[in-house]
Amino acid sequence: MDQTAPLADLPHQHVLFADGMALECGASLPELAVAYRTYGALNAERSNAVLVCHALTGDQYVAEPHPITGKDGWWDAVVGPGRPIDTGRYFVICANVLGGCMGSTGPRSLRDAAGTRWGTDFPPVTIRDMVRAQKRLIDHLGISRLFAVIGGSMGGMQALQWAADYPDAVFAALPIATAAYHSAQNIAFHEVGRQAIFADPDWQGGRYWQTERIPARGLAVARMCAHITYLSEEALARKFGRRLQDAPKSAGEAISLFGDMFEVESYLHHQGSTFVRRFDANSYLTITRAMDYFDLAADHGGDLATAFRGTTTRFLLVSFTSDWLFPTAESRAIARALNRAGANVSFVEIPSDKGHDAFLLDEPDFHRTLAGFLSGCAARAGLAAHD
Amino acid sequence: MDQTAPLADLPHQHVLFADGMALECGASLPELAVAYRTYGALNAERSNAVLVCHALTGDQYVAEPHPITGKDGWWDAVVGPGRPIDTGRYFVICANVLGGCMGSTGPRSLRDAAGTRWGTDFPPVTIRDMVRAQKRLIDHLGISRLFAVIGGSMGGMQALQWAADYPDAVFAALPIATAAYHSAQNIAFHEVGRQAIFADPDWQGGRYWQTERIPARGLAVARMCAHITYLSEEALARKFGRRLQDAPKSAGEAISLFGDMFEVESYLHHQGSTFVRRFDANSYLTITRAMDYFDLAADHGGDLATAFRGTTTRFLLVSFTSDWLFPTAESRAIARALNRAGANVSFVEIPSDKGHDAFLLDEPDFHRTLAGFLSGCAARAGLAAHD
Repeated sequence: MDQTAPLADLPHQHVLFADGMALECGASLPELAVAYRTYGALNAERSNAVLVCHALTGDQYVAEPHPITGKDGWWDAVVGPGRPIDTGRYFVICANVLGGCMGSTGPRSLRDAAGTRWGTDFPPVTIRDMVRAQKRLIDHLGISRLFAVIGGSMGGMQALQWAADYPDAVFAALPIATAAYHSAQNIAFHEVGRQAIFADPDWQGGRYWQTERIPARGLAVARMCAHITYLSEEALARKFGRRLQDAPKSAGEAISLFGDMFEVESYLHHQGSTFVRRFDANSYLTITRAMDYFDLAADHGGDLATAFRGTTTRFLLVSFTSDWLFPTAESRAIARALNRAGANVSFVEIPSDKGHDAFLLDEPDFHRTLAGFLSGCAARAGLAAHD
Repeated sequence: MDQTAPLADLPHQHVLFADGMALECGASLPELAVAYRTYGALNAERSNAVLVCHALTGDQYVAEPHPITGKDGWWDAVVGPGRPIDTGRYFVICANVLGGCMGSTGPRSLRDAAGTRWGTDFPPVTIRDMVRAQKRLIDHLGISRLFAVIGGSMGGMQALQWAADYPDAVFAALPIATAAYHSAQNIAFHEVGRQAIFADPDWQGGRYWQTERIPARGLAVARMCAHITYLSEEALARKFGRRLQDAPKSAGEAISLFGDMFEVESYLHHQGSTFVRRFDANSYLTITRAMDYFDLAADHGGDLATAFRGTTTRFLLVSFTSDWLFPTAESRAIARALNRAGANVSFVEIPSDKGHDAFLLDEPDFHRTLAGFLSGCAARAGLAAHD
């Protein structure tokens, strides 16, 4: 891999809060930028806003081409005119998370007028901090109550945190393929990724932003490892199986120690090398840590139901059968806690062999479930039907 | 991590075949060393030999302290006096695999009189090559038929290969926690480990043996990633859960970006750092590739049953419920193929929450199953009962 140039400083639509923000860790950010994109129109009552929360390596470019890769928005299948989150009906907002690298304040941000970047001095942030930064944006946009907050994976953690922290500001919450805490196995996989970054001498103790070399190899290894956990064995077997990259010309040639031998390997290499062109290694460290910290029950005396007691928010939980990173059991545990809290909760397990990534892919059952739930909520909320 | 010194060249009990060995890839080794250990005594009929095949990172020190780490033998619970593989009854042999780093010919071996090591010029080897090297050893020991061949994980691949290639030389075969081919997901995890090694500049294109620095960081990352796949989520949750390494002194201190925060992280770091003291990175590359190549059905026209047609070997297949690296379905597929081939096969799925590593751990049901199957086979084979 030779993608060693630092990320370009692209302009991103954002709002700057000059008074900064205090963080859970005790540190304060002197100023806070929240980069975001919106789709559709806010209605006169300001009651049709849907906040989409992105996952670990996602960003605010939900339903439009990505400014670096040029690829379609990461949730084009879900957000758009006539889609499950219908931009003809809803005003959709997505903000780059705090700690991210696409315009919101994070390790790449300048920390002072001298042009120094935060790097690894960027304070650790939590899912709650991310949600507080989003709340600032929502207030700034003059929205007192979101019609819905939705997200998958880490986005689902944010949806849960929103419902727990701002119950009056969330009419409906849709945590997808997520959990109320990050499991030991998931922490372990994240730690392997972090160690791969630390092991890359181009990481330079996190000060690579002072040089022209980024830790591309370590970040690519981290991405490759994580990427396997996003897929199911079934999906990998169906997509690649044991197919070889090139047909061997002889029995001996079929066996070579290096190079892309199996298709699944070159696929992983591609995932790693494209990722490092659009993502910052220090952001990866910061955001994986935020996910690892997440334990909503622990923040409420050990009982998850306590986080939601008395809530009037309507919940839709969705899991996917082949998701082994955030398995159905973890969504079921949330559903049980919400039931104990007397909340209005629907829980759907979608049959899919696509693994954790199913929430990003073409899953008609999932999309119908989303559309149906949102339509029901819209009727409840007195939102005018799509004309 | 600062374990950067190369592995010491320890003396290992071995046999040297000066005529070398031709490999599946077409290359030939000019000489072949097979390092091995034995336990118990060969009977007068030479009919009580049990060959134990080790896994990816195992070695021949099955039932005695490891010469580098000083730790107990890796299968002390299974091999020894009165144990399931009773050394009072059986003559147990274990050889370091071809391509390994504990005395058998591999990338660390000298390739010429000038003292040059093979390094990455070591030819790629297959599971079949490993088994052929073991066959040389067995012939050398004057054993025409093994009473049993047993192994877990990659050791199970070897047991299958033995039964397929030398059916008359194997009275009983016990492939444990294994598969007849390496899956796309398993290839993918191996590839992440290899990429982590390649990404370490101390790997130096595989020529680290010319320097005093080994790719300790890359190899440790590879080991950490692999180690997660050996455990179950249940085992990780039970052993570590989300427990912190040190009780935080304040809310802020609970959150820190670097260092061992969760117990599971320091456990992984320990696994990584101890591994690099006893294992050679180029061997890791060579042996993971050998596992990836493994596809016994493909070597027999695509039908696994063909590999075993007409066999008189008695098979015991064992899987563990929580093993997601070599899940029960893969053992079941072998059992079905053996049934189609008309073979004598028993298949036991052991309830365990310890994941793939269960075959190495204290699993009384597994150990009783082994002992019972071997006793039944011994009666069939006319082996005298243990006196």
